[in-house]
Amino acid sequence: MDYVEEIKQLGEQILFKSKLEIPDDIENIVIAGMGGSGIAGRIFKEIYNKKPVITVDNYDIPEFVNNRTLFIAISYSGNTEETITALRKARIKGAIIKAITSGGKLGKEVDDSIIIPKGLQPRSAIGYLTVPLLRGAGFKGGDFEEAAKYVKKIDEKTNEYEEIAEDIWKGRKTPVIFGTPPFSELAYRWKTQFNENSKIISYWSYFPELNHNDTMALENDYRKEQFYFFVLNSKFADKKIQDRIRITSDLCKVNFKMIEGEGDSIISQLFTLIHKGDYISYYVARKRDIDPRDVSIIEKLKKELEKSDINK
Amino acid sequence: MDYVEEIKQLGEQILFKSKLEIPDDIENIVIAGMGGSGIAGRIFKEIYNKKPVITVDNYDIPEFVNNRTLFIAISYSGNTEETITALRKARIKGAIIKAITSGGKLGKEVDDSIIIPKGLQPRSAIGYLTVPLLRGAGFKGGDFEEAAKYVKKIDEKTNEYEEIAEDIWKGRKTPVIFGTPPFSELAYRWKTQFNENSKIISYWSYFPELNHNDTMALENDYRKEQFYFFVLNSKFADKKIQDRIRITSDLCKVNFKMIEGEGDSIISQLFTLIHKGDYISYYVARKRDIDPRDVSIIEKLKKELEKSDINK
Repeated sequence: MDYVEEIKQLGEQILFKSKLEIPDDIENIVIAGMGGSGIAGRIFKEIYNKKPVITVDNYDIPEFVNNRTLFIAISYSGNTEETITALRKARIKGAIIKAITSGGKLGKEVDDSIIIPKGLQPRSAIGYLTVPLLRGAGFKGGDFEEAAKYVKKIDEKTNEYEEIAEDIWKGRKTPVIFGTPPFSELAYRWKTQFNENSKIISYWSYFPELNHNDTMALENDYRKEQFYFFVLNSKFADKKIQDRIRITSDLCKVNFKMIEGEGDSIISQLFTLIHKGDYISYYVARKRDIDPRDVSIIEKLKKELEKSDINK
Repeated sequence: MDYVEEIKQLGEQILFKSKLEIPDDIENIVIAGMGGSGIAGRIFKEIYNKKPVITVDNYDIPEFVNNRTLFIAISYSGNTEETITALRKARIKGAIIKAITSGGKLGKEVDDSIIIPKGLQPRSAIGYLTVPLLRGAGFKGGDFEEAAKYVKKIDEKTNEYEEIAEDIWKGRKTPVIFGTPPFSELAYRWKTQFNENSKIISYWSYFPELNHNDTMALENDYRKEQFYFFVLNSKFADKKIQDRIRITSDLCKVNFKMIEGEGDSIISQLFTLIHKGDYISYYVARKRDIDPRDVSIIEKLKKELEKSDINK
C-alpha cells in the first residue's frame, strides 16, 4: 500500500465512534504520549478547557498526580518506553487510568483501553487517536460528519498541495509553520509531518506569542529567502489575530502562505488543517524520492538504547 | 549603557529577595505572560510539580479558572495587551490574583504585585521575573547564592561564547537548540534570545520528544550543514537522556555543541544555562553590527494594531 493510502484513511477515521469518558469528579487530566501519539493530547489540551490538562512527553509524571487525576496514556504501538514508564508511575499514585492504543504493553496493562486498528504509522492514525478525546470533550456526531466530508473533498484534488511541495523542494526550503489559536498546536503537527514524512528540518510557533520574538527575526534574518512560511488560519481565530497576521507580513516584508481550515465546526476546521499538511509533507518526500513511510532510524535508536541499558 | 551591561545584571538579579507565596488550598495555577515575560511561567511550570500549572500566552483564559485558581500575571512593562486582557477575565471568574511587573497597568490593577526595577528589556529581567516564582516553589537562599556565583564567573570570561557566535555568523547558520528535562523550556529561551538579540530565525525542541520526529530530519535534511545544533545539558538529565544525546548524534552524524549547566543546584544549573545563551546571542548581534537591544518593530506592530482597532 502506498503511504498516500494511509493518509486517505483520515476521512473514515474521523467517523470512529469510540468515546473516552471524562468523569465529572476529577480535578485534573494528565495525558502522556510521544511524537505522533502525543499530538492527540496537545490538540485536546488547547480545545478542552473544563479541567486543567497537563501533557507529559517524558518518563516522569508530575508530583500532583493522585486519585483525583484522570491519567490517559496514548501510544499507537502500545510499547512507547516513555509512556509506559509514566503510566506505571501514575498507577502507583492511584490515578484513574485510561488508554488509547492499538495493543502492545499498554493494551495489556490498561483494562479501560480504547483499542484502535493496527498496521498504520502512528502519525497516520491521528483520527483514531484524537476522536475519542474530542467525543469525550462533548463534540457531537454532526461535527465529525462535516469534518469527514471536507477531509474527503481534500483527497479528491491534491494538485495544489503538490505544487506547494514542488516550491519547497525546488528551493530546498525549510518550512516554518505559524499556528493560530485555538489550533496553535497544529503547527507542531505540521512540523512533525515535515520531519517524519519529508525528512526535513522544520520549525513552528504561533500567534500572538511569535509577535514577541520571531517578528524581529522575520524582519532581519540573513537567510530569510530560504524559509517557506505557512500560517494555519481558521474562522475561529478572532479579528485581533487576523490583524496581527496581516501587519506582521506587511512590516516584516514576509509572504505567508495562508492555509485555511474548512467547514463550520471546530472539528472540521481542525481536521482539514491537519490533512493539508499531511499532503504537502507527503509530496515533498515524493519529490525528494524518499520513502515518506520509512522511520527506521527510530528503530535503530531504540536498539542502541536497549544495548546501552544492558551494558550499564 | 551597552546592552552587555544589562546581561551582566543577572548575577545580582538572582539574589532578588521577593517571594511569590503559593497558597496551600488552591487547586491549580494559571500563569499569563508573553515573550520575555512569559518564559518565567514556562520555566516554573517544568520545575514546580505540586499543583497543575497552565501557562497562557493569548487573550483567553481556560474555562476552569475559579476561586480555587491562583492566577499570576507576568508582564515586565505591565502593559502587555494579551496579559492584561487575560487578567481581567480571571478577575471576573474570582481567581486569586497576583502579578510580577515593573509597573504599568498591571501594577495599578493588582494590589498583590511584586514590583521589580524598571529600565531593562524584559528579556534582560529574567532573574527578577523568575526568582519570586522559584522562591515560592520552595527553593532556598543557598541555591540562589550558588547560582549568582557561577553566573558572575561566566561574565568574567566570555571569549568562548564569542567564538561560537563567530562560527554562527561566518556560516550564516540557523541555531537549533535542543533542551533536556527538567530544562526543556530553556531551549525556547535561547530561541527567543536569538530572535530578539541577534534578529535571526532559530528553532527549538527537547529530548526525548525530538527522537520521535526531528531525528528523521537530522539524518536526512537537505540543508543540514547550515544549522548549528546546541544541546543544553545538565547534571539533572538522567542516564537515559545522556544515552539518547550520544546515540542521536552518532546515528544521524550530527555534531551537537554541548552546553553544560554549572553548579550543584537546580537553580544554578538553570541560570548558568540561560546566561550562556544570552552571551552567544548578544555576540551574534555584535558580529552582524545589529543593535541587540533594538526591538522597535514590536512598537511599530503595536501602533498598527491600535490603528486597526480604531478603524473597526
